[in-house]
Amino acid sequence: MQTLWDYRFARRTQRMKQSAIRELLSIAARNDVISFAGGMPAPEIFPYDKFREACDTALREKGAECLQYGSTDGYLPLREMIARHSTRYGINVTSENILPTSGSQQALDLIGRIFINPGDCILVESPTYLGALQAWTAYGAEFVSVPIDDDGMRTDLLEERLRAGIKFIYVLPNFQNPTGLTLSYERRLQLIELADKYGIPIIEDDPYGQLRYEDEHLPAVVVLDSQTRSQESCYSGNVIYLSTFSKTLAPGIRLAWVIAPPEIINKLVLSKQGADLHTSTFNQIIAHEVAKGGYLNEHVKLIRKVYRERRDVMLDSLEEHMPQETSWSHPKGGLFIWVTLPEHINSKAIFDAALEKHVAFVPGAPFFPEGGGENTMRLNFSNAKPEMINEGIGRLSRVVKDHILKNS
Amino acid sequence: MQTLWDYRFARRTQRMKQSAIRELLSIAARNDVISFAGGMPAPEIFPYDKFREACDTALREKGAECLQYGSTDGYLPLREMIARHSTRYGINVTSENILPTSGSQQALDLIGRIFINPGDCILVESPTYLGALQAWTAYGAEFVSVPIDDDGMRTDLLEERLRAGIKFIYVLPNFQNPTGLTLSYERRLQLIELADKYGIPIIEDDPYGQLRYEDEHLPAVVVLDSQTRSQESCYSGNVIYLSTFSKTLAPGIRLAWVIAPPEIINKLVLSKQGADLHTSTFNQIIAHEVAKGGYLNEHVKLIRKVYRERRDVMLDSLEEHMPQETSWSHPKGGLFIWVTLPEHINSKAIFDAALEKHVAFVPGAPFFPEGGGENTMRLNFSNAKPEMINEGIGRLSRVVKDHILKNS
Repeated sequence: MQTLWDYRFARRTQRMKQSAIRELLSIAARNDVISFAGGMPAPEIFPYDKFREACDTALREKGAECLQYGSTDGYLPLREMIARHSTRYGINVTSENILPTSGSQQALDLIGRIFINPGDCILVESPTYLGALQAWTAYGAEFVSVPIDDDGMRTDLLEERLRAGIKFIYVLPNFQNPTGLTLSYERRLQLIELADKYGIPIIEDDPYGQLRYEDEHLPAVVVLDSQTRSQESCYSGNVIYLSTFSKTLAPGIRLAWVIAPPEIINKLVLSKQGADLHTSTFNQIIAHEVAKGGYLNEHVKLIRKVYRERRDVMLDSLEEHMPQETSWSHPKGGLFIWVTLPEHINSKAIFDAALEKHVAFVPGAPFFPEGGGENTMRLNFSNAKPEMINEGIGRLSRVVKDHILKNS
Repeated sequence: MQTLWDYRFARRTQRMKQSAIRELLSIAARNDVISFAGGMPAPEIFPYDKFREACDTALREKGAECLQYGSTDGYLPLREMIARHSTRYGINVTSENILPTSGSQQALDLIGRIFINPGDCILVESPTYLGALQAWTAYGAEFVSVPIDDDGMRTDLLEERLRAGIKFIYVLPNFQNPTGLTLSYERRLQLIELADKYGIPIIEDDPYGQLRYEDEHLPAVVVLDSQTRSQESCYSGNVIYLSTFSKTLAPGIRLAWVIAPPEIINKLVLSKQGADLHTSTFNQIIAHEVAKGGYLNEHVKLIRKVYRERRDVMLDSLEEHMPQETSWSHPKGGLFIWVTLPEHINSKAIFDAALEKHVAFVPGAPFFPEGGGENTMRLNFSNAKPEMINEGIGRLSRVVKDHILKNS
């Protein structure tokens, strides 16, 4: 269609590309496909009744507040609740440190907006969360990466990269997307020490921290950083911490939050005014209504139980069916298992063949900001029911075996 | 607070300023103030019961869809409903032309993202909507403006400005924010003719179009542009049209939409993926549930009745109380009346004095992208009840009278 808009796109729009993964995800959303592709919660255990009650109560008791314009800085009782919750986990903050956002994706976008100049270099894990790469590429960011192993980011390789002039470090310490791997306690300390040595701040993205299925909770990077700096573990402000209700309540309400020093919260608020004025007051009030009084903590116990079972089913099924040339991560929480195929096998080819057998996953290469990973795949275990997991891994394993045979 | 983030803000962050108006609005939100400051709907007539029913039904019948991740391009039944609604008003489009956004502010932001290079010049009305200036300043836009009179944008002054190399024209043809004035039929045609002559596309922002209190509906600029180009009035694609549920349903659900050619919708979707992944599925489903079956059209009749009365009360009260050196617009719809004081009277001084009498409004100067307007003020009539409007205008008029006396 020819219009007067032709040739009027901004230069940054030329850089935008349809994410390969989004296309795969829309294919994987077909009804007849067993999908391990998305990062979606189990719909069977969404707290529907609690949401219905919360909507009813909120609209009866705070109707005008629900439906009217609200302030950009967010619904105060929600911010206070998040502050109390954070403090229980050792992040000693008040509502002044908290900005509710329209999902974590918006938090990443606003951070890009206020910090990233074109050409700025961000240090990330390799592989890392694609949404962060997408958000920051829009602001002209470049990426330097540190590989990850079973103990998370290889902090032994960090120092040389920190000398390269890094704007900030982005890390997902718990059950990382896409690998499911966790940064060890020792490496958390090394990360903080090196970041401090070179004066480089950290973004800690923690959507899955509450979804741990074994071993003890590890203190967040933001907590350890604050502990090393003050006796009272007051929030040091060096680590901006992100979390979300998407994995514990429901992603459909698009509600997440940033924890940062008040000066940074103020800049984020200013930039959020231009971006979407404010996050839905209705959703903030509903989330507060659902989560309050300890309900969310109880509900998270149920999620942990269900997802632990699904993880175990997937791990057992991989063990039973996958050829021995393959390996995979043993995540202690979160939503994902990361599979590594023999070097010469391309997981995109596996994707195409698996789709013919009505099974989907996400090929790993796009998660590597500096290339590589063509032989990797991300499997989600939270969204499919156990019997479907078994069936799907069985089919996928046969596809992988065939490919290995054909290519040997 | 000293942190490792110090001196790490991006250059664009230096350009961000606390909007003077937002500060005023937070003052005006005090409980003891009669506020004509915000652009807020009347909370007395929000359809609370309908929202409660809609939440209940949606969570019972489409619970998983409400709470799960959704696609960036939006909830299809909502897009189809908006397409049907638009077609009834002569905008002949399908769901492919429609992108739901997280409020109109996000639509403005995404448009800035995909079209504006730093230094690009946007043609706007003077005065114009502040949210657009704020959104596009973040992308480095410059503004050229055309003054407005009782028939809207002075199209007789348009041509010389269009020669200056304009990226696009931004216009609010109906009951414009901040003046309440409407672009006449003849000027709509002149605008289209000149835009076509110079090959410059148009953004038509129409949040208030349905809130007309007298005279006949005027065809939208997008409709007239399409009619001049094809016999069947197919959507020409030259005009990107924005509207919202904020003024007809509720602003708290943050739901608006863009109408554009599919190629532009695709770019907006790509950029929205990085910005907030998607607009709350819950809110999209609720809005569809509330609006469908003709309910929204019925509800808008009630809004028109209530706001028309409030407008008339404010106009009568201004007539009765304001000194004769002042003048004001007679809006045929929307939410605002625009008051012009004698040249030498500064409305910011009036604001301070009025606040002491517990009355608030918005001084007009910030709405002028190229300066001026220090003697103007924007009064909102939708949010306060009639008796409060009378009381507030009485107090405000006394403050204005005192100032004119003192400065004469």
